[in-house]
Amino acid sequence: MKQSILYVVGIGPGHPAGMTEEARRVIEDCEVIAGYPLYLSLLDTDLSRKTVIKTGMTGEEERCRRALQSAAEGKKTALVCSGDPGVYGMAGLVLAMQEEVPGVTVRVIPGVTAATAGAALLGAPLMHDFAVISLSDRLTPWEKIEKRLLLAAEADLVIVLYNPESKSRSGYLQKACSILLTVLPPDRPAATARNIGREGEEVWTGTVKELTNRGGDMFTTVYIGNSTTILKKGKMITRRGYPGEMRSREG
Amino acid sequence: MKQSILYVVGIGPGHPAGMTEEARRVIEDCEVIAGYPLYLSLLDTDLSRKTVIKTGMTGEEERCRRALQSAAEGKKTALVCSGDPGVYGMAGLVLAMQEEVPGVTVRVIPGVTAATAGAALLGAPLMHDFAVISLSDRLTPWEKIEKRLLLAAEADLVIVLYNPESKSRSGYLQKACSILLTVLPPDRPAATARNIGREGEEVWTGTVKELTNRGGDMFTTVYIGNSTTILKKGKMITRRGYPGEMRSREG
Repeated sequence: MKQSILYVVGIGPGHPAGMTEEARRVIEDCEVIAGYPLYLSLLDTDLSRKTVIKTGMTGEEERCRRALQSAAEGKKTALVCSGDPGVYGMAGLVLAMQEEVPGVTVRVIPGVTAATAGAALLGAPLMHDFAVISLSDRLTPWEKIEKRLLLAAEADLVIVLYNPESKSRSGYLQKACSILLTVLPPDRPAATARNIGREGEEVWTGTVKELTNRGGDMFTTVYIGNSTTILKKGKMITRRGYPGEMRSREG
Repeated sequence: MKQSILYVVGIGPGHPAGMTEEARRVIEDCEVIAGYPLYLSLLDTDLSRKTVIKTGMTGEEERCRRALQSAAEGKKTALVCSGDPGVYGMAGLVLAMQEEVPGVTVRVIPGVTAATAGAALLGAPLMHDFAVISLSDRLTPWEKIEKRLLLAAEADLVIVLYNPESKSRSGYLQKACSILLTVLPPDRPAATARNIGREGEEVWTGTVKELTNRGGDMFTTVYIGNSTTILKKGKMITRRGYPGEMRSREG
Protein backbone atom coordinates (compact mmCIF):
# COMPACT_ATOMS: atom_id res chain seq x y z
CA MET A 1 0.00 0.00 0.00
CA LYS A 2 1.23 3.49 -0.84
CA GLN A 3 2.29 5.46 2.22
CA SER A 4 0.11 8.56 2.46
CA ILE A 5 0.65 11.51 4.77
CA LEU A 6 -1.93 13.72 6.42
CA TYR A 7 -0.44 17.01 7.59
CA VAL A 8 -2.10 18.58 10.63
CA VAL A 9 -0.98 22.17 10.32
CA GLY A 10 -1.01 25.02 12.84
CA ILE A 11 -1.35 28.42 11.19
CA GLY A 12 -0.52 30.43 14.30
CA PRO A 13 -2.48 33.26 15.87
CA GLY A 14 -4.28 34.60 12.84
CA HIS A 15 -2.41 36.91 10.49
CA PRO A 16 -0.63 35.04 7.67
CA ALA A 17 2.82 36.37 8.72
CA GLY A 18 2.41 34.56 12.03
CA MET A 19 2.52 31.22 10.20
CA THR A 20 5.79 29.30 9.97
CA GLU A 21 7.40 28.84 6.59
CA GLU A 22 7.01 25.09 6.99
CA ALA A 23 3.24 25.51 7.50
CA ARG A 24 2.93 27.75 4.45
CA ARG A 25 4.94 25.35 2.29
CA VAL A 26 2.79 22.39 3.32
CA ILE A 27 -0.48 24.27 2.69
CA GLU A 28 0.69 25.47 -0.72
CA ASP A 29 1.83 21.96 -1.63
CA CYS A 30 -1.39 20.21 -0.66
CA GLU A 31 -4.23 19.72 -3.10
CA VAL A 32 -6.85 19.17 -0.40
CA ILE A 33 -7.29 21.54 2.55
CA ALA A 34 -9.61 20.74 5.46
CA GLY A 35 -10.50 23.16 8.23
CA TYR A 36 -13.02 25.22 10.11
CA PRO A 37 -14.20 27.93 7.67
CA LEU A 38 -13.03 30.85 9.88
CA TYR A 39 -9.47 29.53 9.92
CA LEU A 40 -9.46 28.87 6.20
CA SER A 41 -10.52 32.50 5.68
CA LEU A 42 -7.38 33.63 7.54
CA LEU A 43 -5.12 31.98 4.97
CA ASP A 44 -3.76 34.15 2.18
CA THR A 45 -3.21 31.07 0.04
CA ASP A 46 -5.30 30.81 -3.13
CA LEU A 47 -7.75 28.03 -2.32
CA SER A 48 -9.65 28.23 -5.61
CA ARG A 49 -7.44 25.56 -7.19
CA LYS A 50 -7.66 23.25 -4.23
CA THR A 51 -10.35 20.95 -2.92
CA VAL A 52 -11.66 22.36 0.35
CA ILE A 53 -13.22 20.23 3.08
CA LYS A 54 -15.26 22.52 5.32
CA THR A 55 -17.24 21.40 8.31
CA GLY A 56 -18.59 23.44 11.23
CA MET A 57 -16.99 23.71 14.67
CA THR A 58 -18.99 20.73 15.93
CA GLY A 59 -18.15 18.59 12.91
CA GLU A 60 -14.65 17.91 14.18
CA GLU A 61 -14.68 14.14 13.93
CA GLU A 62 -16.23 14.31 10.49
CA ARG A 63 -13.55 16.76 9.36
CA CYS A 64 -10.74 14.56 10.67
CA ARG A 65 -12.23 11.45 9.07
CA ARG A 66 -12.65 13.12 5.69
CA ALA A 67 -9.10 14.49 5.86
CA LEU A 68 -7.74 11.01 6.69
CA GLN A 69 -9.76 9.48 3.84
CA SER A 70 -8.51 12.11 1.42
CA ALA A 71 -4.90 11.34 2.38
CA ALA A 72 -5.59 7.59 2.08
CA GLU A 73 -6.79 8.19 -1.48
CA GLY A 74 -3.29 9.46 -2.25
CA LYS A 75 -4.18 13.15 -2.28
CA LYS A 76 -1.78 15.53 -0.55
CA THR A 77 -3.95 16.74 2.31
CA ALA A 78 -3.59 19.31 5.08
CA LEU A 79 -5.94 19.71 8.03
CA VAL A 80 -5.60 23.32 9.16
CA CYS A 81 -5.96 24.49 12.78
CA SER A 82 -5.54 27.93 14.31
CA GLY A 83 -2.62 28.34 16.71
CA ASP A 84 -0.90 25.02 17.35
CA PRO A 85 -2.77 21.83 16.35
CA GLY A 86 -1.41 20.08 19.45
CA VAL A 87 -2.90 22.50 22.00
CA TYR A 88 -6.66 21.85 22.26
CA GLY A 89 -6.48 21.30 18.49
CA MET A 90 -7.10 18.46 16.06
CA ALA A 91 -3.79 16.57 16.37
CA GLY A 92 -4.98 14.23 19.11
CA LEU A 93 -8.30 13.48 17.45
CA VAL A 94 -6.62 12.67 14.13
CA LEU A 95 -4.10 10.36 15.82
CA ALA A 96 -6.88 8.66 17.79
CA MET A 97 -8.90 8.12 14.60
CA GLN A 98 -5.91 7.10 12.51
CA GLU A 99 -6.64 3.39 12.78
CA GLU A 100 -10.03 3.82 11.10
CA VAL A 101 -8.23 4.70 7.86
CA PRO A 102 -5.25 2.37 7.39
CA GLY A 103 -2.09 3.41 5.60
CA VAL A 104 -2.01 7.07 6.57
CA THR A 105 0.94 8.60 8.41
CA VAL A 106 0.09 11.73 10.41
CA ARG A 107 2.56 14.60 10.59
CA VAL A 108 1.90 17.50 12.95
CA ILE A 109 3.30 20.91 11.94
CA PRO A 110 3.43 23.11 15.04
CA GLY A 111 2.38 26.75 15.14
CA VAL A 112 2.50 29.65 17.55
CA THR A 113 -0.21 28.96 20.14
CA ALA A 114 -2.48 31.67 21.58
CA ALA A 115 -0.74 31.53 24.99
CA THR A 116 2.56 32.81 23.62
CA ALA A 117 1.10 34.98 20.84
CA GLY A 118 -1.03 36.84 23.40
CA ALA A 119 1.91 36.98 25.81
CA ALA A 120 3.97 38.77 23.15
CA LEU A 121 1.27 41.44 22.84
CA LEU A 122 1.04 41.86 26.61
CA GLY A 123 4.78 42.00 27.34
CA ALA A 124 6.27 38.97 29.04
CA PRO A 125 3.76 37.29 31.37
CA LEU A 126 5.09 33.75 30.71
CA MET A 127 8.72 34.26 31.70
CA HIS A 128 8.41 31.63 34.37
CA ASP A 129 6.51 28.39 35.03
CA PHE A 130 2.89 28.45 33.90
CA ALA A 131 -0.24 26.35 33.52
CA VAL A 132 -2.57 26.34 30.54
CA ILE A 133 -6.16 25.50 31.49
CA SER A 134 -9.31 25.46 29.37
CA LEU A 135 -12.55 26.57 31.03
CA SER A 136 -14.64 24.54 28.60
CA ASP A 137 -16.58 21.86 30.46
CA ARG A 138 -17.92 20.30 27.28
CA LEU A 139 -15.62 17.28 27.71
CA THR A 140 -14.23 17.90 31.21
CA PRO A 141 -16.16 17.85 34.50
CA TRP A 142 -16.24 21.36 36.03
CA GLU A 143 -14.98 19.97 39.37
CA LYS A 144 -11.76 18.95 37.62
CA ILE A 145 -11.31 22.43 36.13
CA GLU A 146 -11.96 23.97 39.55
CA LYS A 147 -9.37 21.74 41.20
CA ARG A 148 -6.78 22.62 38.56
CA LEU A 149 -7.36 26.34 39.03
CA LEU A 150 -6.89 26.01 42.79
CA LEU A 151 -3.76 23.87 42.60
CA ALA A 152 -2.19 26.04 39.88
CA ALA A 153 -2.77 29.13 42.03
CA GLU A 154 -1.34 27.38 45.08
CA ALA A 155 1.70 26.39 43.02
CA ASP A 156 2.28 30.08 42.18
CA LEU A 157 2.14 29.25 38.47
CA VAL A 158 1.20 31.93 35.98
CA ILE A 159 -2.16 30.76 34.63
CA VAL A 160 -3.34 30.99 31.03
CA LEU A 161 -7.03 30.32 30.40
CA TYR A 162 -8.24 29.14 27.00
CA ASN A 163 -11.92 29.17 26.02
CA PRO A 164 -12.92 31.33 29.02
CA GLU A 165 -16.52 31.70 27.90
CA SER A 166 -18.81 30.97 24.99
CA LYS A 167 -22.43 31.76 24.21
CA SER A 168 -23.55 28.68 26.12
CA ARG A 169 -21.04 29.14 28.95
CA SER A 170 -21.46 32.76 30.02
CA GLY A 171 -20.30 33.55 33.55
CA TYR A 172 -17.54 30.91 33.52
CA LEU A 173 -14.72 33.44 33.72
CA GLN A 174 -16.41 35.01 36.74
CA LYS A 175 -16.73 31.58 38.38
CA ALA A 176 -13.05 30.89 37.69
CA CYS A 177 -12.00 34.24 39.18
CA SER A 178 -14.04 33.58 42.33
CA ILE A 179 -12.20 30.29 42.77
CA LEU A 180 -8.79 31.87 42.13
CA LEU A 181 -9.57 34.67 44.60
CA THR A 182 -9.85 32.12 47.41
CA VAL A 183 -6.06 31.71 46.98
CA LEU A 184 -4.81 34.85 45.20
CA PRO A 185 -4.90 38.47 46.39
CA PRO A 186 -7.54 40.60 44.57
CA ASP A 187 -4.85 42.93 43.19
CA ARG A 188 -2.92 40.12 41.46
CA PRO A 189 -2.20 41.30 37.87
CA ALA A 190 -4.42 39.84 35.17
CA ALA A 191 -4.80 40.45 31.45
CA THR A 192 -6.68 39.39 28.37
CA ALA A 193 -5.75 39.24 24.70
CA ARG A 194 -8.55 38.98 22.16
CA ASN A 195 -8.57 38.30 18.42
CA ILE A 196 -4.79 37.91 18.51
CA GLY A 197 -3.26 38.76 15.13
CA ARG A 198 -6.68 39.37 13.60
CA GLU A 199 -9.05 42.24 12.95
CA GLY A 200 -10.30 43.60 16.26
CA GLU A 201 -7.15 42.65 18.18
CA GLU A 202 -7.30 44.09 21.69
CA VAL A 203 -5.52 43.67 24.98
CA TRP A 204 -6.57 44.59 28.51
CA THR A 205 -4.59 44.62 31.75
CA GLY A 206 -5.84 44.98 35.32
CA THR A 207 -6.31 42.83 38.41
CA VAL A 208 -8.01 39.50 39.04
CA LYS A 209 -10.76 41.35 40.91
CA GLU A 210 -11.39 43.56 37.87
CA LEU A 211 -11.24 40.53 35.58
CA THR A 212 -14.20 39.07 37.48
CA ASN A 213 -16.55 41.55 35.84
CA ARG A 214 -15.21 41.29 32.31
CA GLY A 215 -16.71 38.76 29.99
CA GLY A 216 -14.77 36.73 27.48
CA ASP A 217 -15.39 34.57 24.47
CA MET A 218 -13.78 31.75 22.51
CA PHE A 219 -11.34 34.23 20.96
CA THR A 220 -10.11 35.57 24.30
CA THR A 221 -7.01 34.29 26.10
CA VAL A 222 -6.74 35.18 29.78
CA TYR A 223 -3.57 35.62 31.88
CA ILE A 224 -3.30 35.55 35.69
CA GLY A 225 0.08 36.54 37.07
CA ASN A 226 2.16 34.75 39.70
CA SER A 227 3.51 36.41 42.86
CA THR A 228 6.30 38.14 40.90
CA THR A 229 4.17 39.45 38.02
CA ILE A 230 3.90 43.22 37.68
CA LEU A 231 2.10 45.65 35.43
CA LYS A 232 4.38 48.41 34.16
CA LYS A 233 3.30 51.00 31.60
CA GLY A 234 0.53 48.72 30.38
CA LYS A 235 2.84 45.71 30.05
CA MET A 236 2.48 42.50 32.06
CA ILE A 237 5.88 41.19 33.14
CA THR A 238 6.72 38.11 35.21
CA ARG A 239 10.19 37.86 36.74
CA ARG A 240 12.46 35.10 35.49
CA GLY A 241 12.75 33.64 38.97
CA TYR A 242 12.96 34.51 42.62
CA PRO A 243 16.45 36.05 42.83
CA GLY A 244 15.63 37.87 46.09
CA GLU A 245 14.72 34.61 47.79
CA MET A 246 17.84 32.98 46.36
CA ARG A 247 20.08 35.68 47.79
CA SER A 248 18.49 35.47 51.20
CA ARG A 249 18.98 31.70 51.22
CA GLU A 250 22.63 32.06 50.34
CA GLY A 251 23.22 35.05 52.68
CA MET B 1 13.32 62.06 20.63
CA LYS B 2 13.03 59.63 17.74
CA GLN B 3 10.98 56.56 18.61
CA SER B 4 13.18 53.49 18.24
CA ILE B 5 12.03 49.89 18.32
CA LEU B 6 13.88 46.87 19.63
CA TYR B 7 12.44 43.64 18.27
CA VAL B 8 12.76 40.59 20.51
CA VAL B 9 12.35 37.77 18.02
CA GLY B 10 11.60 34.08 18.55
CA ILE B 11 13.06 31.89 15.81
CA GLY B 12 11.20 28.74 16.78
CA PRO B 13 12.57 25.30 17.48
CA GLY B 14 15.70 25.39 15.33
CA HIS B 15 15.36 24.79 11.61
CA PRO B 16 14.80 27.98 9.60
CA ALA B 17 11.44 26.76 8.22
CA GLY B 18 10.12 26.66 11.78
CA MET B 19 10.41 30.43 11.98
CA THR B 20 7.37 32.61 11.29
CA GLU B 21 7.38 34.85 8.27
CA GLU B 22 7.11 37.86 10.58
CA ALA B 23 10.26 36.78 12.42
CA ARG B 24 12.18 36.31 9.17
CA ARG B 25 11.06 39.66 7.82
CA VAL B 26 12.14 41.46 11.00
CA ILE B 27 15.55 39.74 11.06
CA GLU B 28 16.16 40.50 7.38
CA ASP B 29 15.11 44.14 7.90
CA CYS B 30 17.33 44.78 10.89
CA GLU B 31 20.89 46.02 10.56
CA VAL B 32 21.95 44.86 14.02
CA ILE B 33 21.32 41.33 15.29
CA ALA B 34 22.00 40.32 18.89
CA GLY B 35 21.87 36.76 20.18
CA TYR B 36 23.51 33.76 21.72
CA PRO B 37 25.98 32.44 19.08
CA LEU B 38 24.32 28.99 18.81
CA TYR B 39 20.97 30.55 17.91
CA LEU B 40 22.55 32.94 15.41
CA SER B 41 24.16 29.93 13.72
CA LEU B 42 20.68 28.43 13.18
CA LEU B 43 19.61 31.38 11.04
CA ASP B 44 19.92 31.05 7.30
CA THR B 45 19.99 34.83 6.94
CA ASP B 46 23.22 36.34 5.60
CA LEU B 47 24.68 38.04 8.66
CA SER B 48 27.86 39.24 6.92
CA ARG B 49 26.29 42.60 6.05
CA LYS B 50 24.85 43.11 9.53
CA THR B 51 26.38 44.13 12.83
CA VAL B 52 26.27 41.17 15.16
CA ILE B 53 26.19 41.49 18.96
CA LYS B 54 27.29 38.16 20.42
CA THR B 55 27.60 37.43 24.10
CA GLY B 56 27.77 34.08 25.88
CA MET B 57 24.86 32.37 27.63
CA THR B 58 25.72 34.09 30.92
CA GLY B 59 26.04 37.51 29.32
CA GLU B 60 22.27 37.89 29.05
CA GLU B 61 21.93 41.28 30.71
CA GLU B 62 24.85 42.63 28.74
CA ARG B 63 23.28 41.38 25.50
CA CYS B 64 19.92 42.99 26.31
CA ARG B 65 21.57 46.28 27.30
CA ARG B 66 23.64 46.44 24.12
CA ALA B 67 20.60 45.61 22.00
CA LEU B 68 18.58 48.37 23.72
CA GLN B 69 21.43 50.84 23.22
CA SER B 70 21.73 49.88 19.57
CA ALA B 71 18.02 50.53 19.05
CA ALA B 72 18.28 53.83 20.97
CA GLU B 73 20.99 54.92 18.51
CA GLY B 74 18.39 54.60 15.78
CA LYS B 75 19.63 51.31 14.36
CA LYS B 76 17.06 48.71 13.44
CA THR B 77 17.87 46.00 15.97
CA ALA B 78 16.65 42.47 16.64
CA LEU B 79 17.47 40.41 19.71
CA VAL B 80 17.10 36.78 18.64
CA CYS B 81 15.97 33.96 20.97
CA SER B 82 15.34 30.29 20.26
CA GLY B 83 11.74 29.12 20.57
CA ASP B 84 9.52 31.88 21.90
CA PRO B 85 11.23 34.89 23.54
CA GLY B 86 8.43 35.08 26.11
CA VAL B 87 8.90 31.54 27.50
CA TYR B 88 12.04 31.53 29.69
CA GLY B 89 13.50 33.86 27.04
CA MET B 90 14.77 37.43 26.87
CA ALA B 91 11.46 39.31 26.55
CA GLY B 92 11.02 39.87 30.28
CA LEU B 93 14.61 40.92 30.87
CA VAL B 94 14.49 43.44 28.02
CA LEU B 95 11.22 44.91 29.31
CA ALA B 96 12.60 45.09 32.84
CA MET B 97 15.76 46.87 31.60
CA GLN B 98 13.89 49.13 29.19
CA GLU B 99 13.96 52.14 31.54
CA GLU B 100 17.76 52.15 31.55
CA VAL B 101 17.71 53.19 27.89
CA PRO B 102 14.97 55.80 27.35
CA GLY B 103 13.11 56.16 24.10
CA VAL B 104 13.07 52.53 23.02
CA THR B 105 9.81 50.67 22.36
CA VAL B 106 10.06 46.89 22.71
CA ARG B 107 8.15 44.61 20.35
CA VAL B 108 8.04 40.88 21.02
CA ILE B 109 7.68 38.60 17.96
CA PRO B 110 6.46 35.21 19.18
CA GLY B 111 7.80 31.89 17.96
CA VAL B 112 6.98 28.21 18.29
CA THR B 113 8.15 27.22 21.77
CA ALA B 114 9.84 23.88 22.53
CA ALA B 115 6.78 22.57 24.39
CA THR B 116 4.62 22.53 21.28
CA ALA B 117 7.41 21.82 18.76
CA GLY B 118 8.39 18.72 20.74
CA ALA B 119 4.75 17.78 21.18
CA ALA B 120 4.31 17.78 17.40
CA LEU B 121 7.16 15.28 17.05
CA LEU B 122 5.75 13.06 19.78
CA GLY B 123 2.13 13.04 18.60
CA ALA B 124 -0.33 15.03 20.70
CA PRO B 125 0.66 15.02 24.38
CA LEU B 126 -0.67 18.56 25.03
CA MET B 127 -4.25 18.08 23.90
CA HIS B 128 -5.51 19.02 27.34
CA ASP B 129 -4.50 21.27 30.27
CA PHE B 130 -0.78 21.31 30.98
CA ALA B 131 1.90 22.93 33.11
CA VAL B 132 5.30 24.11 31.90
CA ILE B 133 7.95 23.92 34.63
CA SER B 134 11.69 24.59 34.44
CA LEU B 135 13.96 22.42 36.58
CA SER B 136 16.65 25.12 36.68
CA ASP B 137 17.22 26.28 40.24
CA ARG B 138 19.62 29.01 39.22
CA LEU B 139 17.01 31.69 39.98
CA THR B 140 14.31 29.62 41.70
CA PRO B 141 14.55 27.82 45.05
CA TRP B 142 14.37 24.05 44.52
CA GLU B 143 11.60 23.75 47.14
CA LYS B 144 9.40 25.90 44.91
CA ILE B 145 10.09 23.68 41.90
CA GLU B 146 9.34 20.59 43.99
CA LYS B 147 6.03 22.04 45.19
CA ARG B 148 5.02 22.89 41.63
CA LEU B 149 5.78 19.36 40.41
CA LEU B 150 3.66 17.87 43.18
CA LEU B 151 0.70 20.21 42.71
CA ALA B 152 0.78 19.86 38.91
CA ALA B 153 0.72 16.06 39.26
CA GLU B 154 -2.12 16.27 41.80
CA ALA B 155 -4.02 18.50 39.37
CA ASP B 156 -3.71 15.79 36.68
CA LEU B 157 -2.05 18.29 34.36
CA VAL B 158 0.23 17.08 31.59
CA ILE B 159 3.67 18.34 32.65
CA VAL B 160 6.33 19.75 30.34
CA LEU B 161 9.80 20.17 31.84
CA TYR B 162 12.23 22.71 30.39
CA ASN B 163 15.95 22.70 31.28
CA PRO B 164 15.77 19.25 32.91
CA GLU B 165 19.50 19.02 33.49
CA SER B 166 22.74 20.80 32.69
CA LYS B 167 26.40 20.04 33.31
CA SER B 168 26.18 21.63 36.75
CA ARG B 169 22.74 20.17 37.53
CA SER B 170 23.08 16.48 36.74
CA GLY B 171 20.59 14.21 38.51
CA TYR B 172 17.83 16.85 38.56
CA LEU B 173 15.53 14.92 36.23
CA GLN B 174 15.89 11.88 38.46
CA LYS B 175 15.02 14.00 41.52
CA ALA B 176 11.98 15.39 39.70
CA CYS B 177 10.81 11.89 38.72
CA SER B 178 11.15 10.68 42.32
CA ILE B 179 8.89 13.53 43.44
CA LEU B 180 6.36 12.90 40.68
CA LEU B 181 6.29 9.18 41.51
CA THR B 182 4.97 9.97 45.00
CA VAL B 183 1.75 11.00 43.19
CA LEU B 184 1.82 9.32 39.77
CA PRO B 185 1.82 5.61 38.93
CA PRO B 186 5.23 4.32 37.70
CA ASP B 187 3.75 3.31 34.34
CA ARG B 188 2.46 6.82 33.55
CA PRO B 189 3.56 7.64 29.96
CA ALA B 190 6.54 9.95 29.62
CA ALA B 191 8.61 11.20 26.70
CA THR B 192 11.52 13.38 25.72
CA ALA B 193 12.30 15.41 22.63
CA ARG B 194 15.88 16.53 22.09
CA ASN B 195 17.49 18.95 19.61
CA ILE B 196 14.04 19.70 18.18
CA GLY B 197 14.28 20.83 14.57
CA ARG B 198 18.08 20.60 14.65
CA GLU B 199 20.82 18.14 13.80
CA GLY B 200 20.63 15.22 16.20
CA GLU B 201 16.86 15.48 16.68
CA GLU B 202 15.61 12.51 18.70
CA VAL B 203 12.51 11.48 20.59
CA TRP B 204 12.00 8.84 23.25
CA THR B 205 8.81 7.46 24.80
CA GLY B 206 8.39 5.27 27.87
CA THR B 207 7.16 5.55 31.44
CA VAL B 208 7.96 7.93 34.30
CA LYS B 209 9.81 5.07 36.01
CA GLU B 210 11.99 4.56 32.93
CA LEU B 211 12.49 8.31 32.62
CA THR B 212 14.12 8.29 36.07
CA ASN B 213 17.23 6.66 34.68
CA ARG B 214 17.56 8.75 31.54
CA GLY B 215 19.62 11.90 31.72
CA GLY B 216 18.76 15.11 29.94
CA ASP B 217 20.39 18.36 28.99
CA MET B 218 19.48 21.97 28.19
CA PHE B 219 18.31 20.87 24.73
CA THR B 220 15.90 18.24 26.05
CA THR B 221 12.19 18.86 26.66
CA VAL B 222 10.41 16.32 28.87
CA TYR B 223 6.74 15.31 28.83
CA ILE B 224 4.80 13.55 31.61
CA GLY B 225 1.29 12.45 30.66
CA ASN B 226 -1.93 12.96 32.60
CA SER B 227 -4.33 10.15 33.57
CA THR B 228 -5.72 9.94 30.00
CA THR B 229 -2.39 9.95 28.15
CA ILE B 230 -1.54 6.83 26.18
CA LEU B 231 1.36 5.61 24.09
CA LYS B 232 0.25 4.13 20.79
CA LYS B 233 2.67 3.01 18.07
CA GLY B 234 5.37 5.25 19.50
CA LYS B 235 3.11 8.29 19.68
CA MET B 236 2.12 10.02 22.94
CA ILE B 237 -1.53 11.06 22.87
CA THR B 238 -3.56 12.81 25.56
CA ARG B 239 -7.35 12.70 25.29
CA ARG B 240 -9.16 15.98 24.69
CA GLY B 241 -11.14 15.57 27.89
CA TYR B 242 -12.84 13.05 30.11
CA PRO B 243 -15.84 12.04 27.99
CA GLY B 244 -16.27 8.76 29.90
CA GLU B 245 -16.59 10.60 33.19
CA MET B 246 -18.98 13.07 31.59
CA ARG B 247 -21.23 10.25 30.39
CA SER B 248 -21.24 8.50 33.72
CA ARG B 249 -22.15 11.75 35.45
CA GLU B 250 -25.04 12.28 33.09
CA GLY B 251 -26.17 8.64 33.14
